[in-house]
Amino acid sequence: MRPEIVLFGDSLTEQSFGSGGWGAALADTYSRKADVLVRGYGGYNTRWALFLLHHIFPLNAPKAPIVVTIFFGANDAAILGRSSERQHVPLEEYKDNLKKMVNHLKEYSPKTLVILITPPPIDEEGRNEYARSLYGDKARELPERTNEVTGRYAKQCLELAKEMGLHAIDLWSKLQETEGWQKKFLRDGLHFTPEGNGVLHQELEKVLSETSVSAANMPLDFPHHSKIDGKNPEKAFQYLSL
Amino acid sequence: MRPEIVLFGDSLTEQSFGSGGWGAALADTYSRKADVLVRGYGGYNTRWALFLLHHIFPLNAPKAPIVVTIFFGANDAAILGRSSERQHVPLEEYKDNLKKMVNHLKEYSPKTLVILITPPPIDEEGRNEYARSLYGDKARELPERTNEVTGRYAKQCLELAKEMGLHAIDLWSKLQETEGWQKKFLRDGLHFTPEGNGVLHQELEKVLSETSVSAANMPLDFPHHSKIDGKNPEKAFQYLSL
Repeated sequence: MRPEIVLFGDSLTEQSFGSGGWGAALADTYSRKADVLVRGYGGYNTRWALFLLHHIFPLNAPKAPIVVTIFFGANDAAILGRSSERQHVPLEEYKDNLKKMVNHLKEYSPKTLVILITPPPIDEEGRNEYARSLYGDKARELPERTNEVTGRYAKQCLELAKEMGLHAIDLWSKLQETEGWQKKFLRDGLHFTPEGNGVLHQELEKVLSETSVSAANMPLDFPHHSKIDGKNPEKAFQYLSL
Repeated sequence: MRPEIVLFGDSLTEQSFGSGGWGAALADTYSRKADVLVRGYGGYNTRWALFLLHHIFPLNAPKAPIVVTIFFGANDAAILGRSSERQHVPLEEYKDNLKKMVNHLKEYSPKTLVILITPPPIDEEGRNEYARSLYGDKARELPERTNEVTGRYAKQCLELAKEMGLHAIDLWSKLQETEGWQKKFLRDGLHFTPEGNGVLHQELEKVLSETSVSAANMPLDFPHHSKIDGKNPEKAFQYLSL
């Protein structure tokens, strides 16, 4: 049975198979080795995602994924009293919800590699421009997310990874290392450009390359075509019927 | 259980999750509705792919895909006596092999929508340039595939679809409708540019949109976030525990 990699998160995961997307790039890397399945839910925070957890990862499933990425926080960090407050989840609850997800996955399958991803940084100017492009003069004055507040959520995510001994990608910090990250990596102040997608894909590959489920260490599902003798093709496939 | 769409074919399928790829675009269209699984085998012809058929689509599998694309022929059409002759499969056998694949899938699951895709046209000049870029002066003089010969395979594929009442995409003709298709749609005379990927994706969507498994007709897996009441989120998910 083909191993599975599940990407669980919000719109940043849901859109990961768009052009240049990080999910599609991962699927390409694991071509003929593992299936990459998107479980991304635009607009969801961790509180709402918990309602899905047991349905997406039922304890009695016949097989468990080899890798699960958990990538929430961008919506939890929406600020109270501003236009997206409906999505807000308090900082401590965010961490606690992530912990519940990890504990469920560990109960489900102790061997599954869980990778936590922090929310990306926020380009507040980009968010405002985006709001104005949608609503014109009616756009809210204050950004519904700020980089500073989102950074606090990123920190909680990293702390949890440390406490639980999990792999984590500090995307909030990583993206900000590059001059001009605001427009280079984010297309509306929050969602990725192809370059932003590329950074997350690279960071994921870096984490995965040091584990037992590195694509480079996994065998191809069936013989490479160069191993097939044109005159006796059955030889290359004999092992399948043993 | 999430429905599955399986893409079965050669390198044109294996590479379909590369940047701008038609497989990734399909996965994006079916996000939150169906999983798109790549079963692409670079260099394979239909004769070799038959060895994999029962392993990829075992008759006793607990669930069958809702859609399977079968996309072979580019390698079968390699010309005898030229550099890729190892991959050559005679025209009649190609059609017969495709028929075996379809019959197996129909036995496996009569309801599965099978879509045959013809090989794309060949830009012989592009193939030659590509060979020279790899081998310089040692590159073979004559193209290992010609557009005219590949066209005969495309025709067999379409004939079979007609005989068996299957959906088919005549990619060989479709791509050639556009002026400058050679460089616009193919990057090495055979494999797709992002624009070429785009055409196949569009054609697939067109076929799928007229069927019961059109993405537009399929429900989202879980509630859209706008349906969730921030103060009473459990209401939106109550139906899950019924």
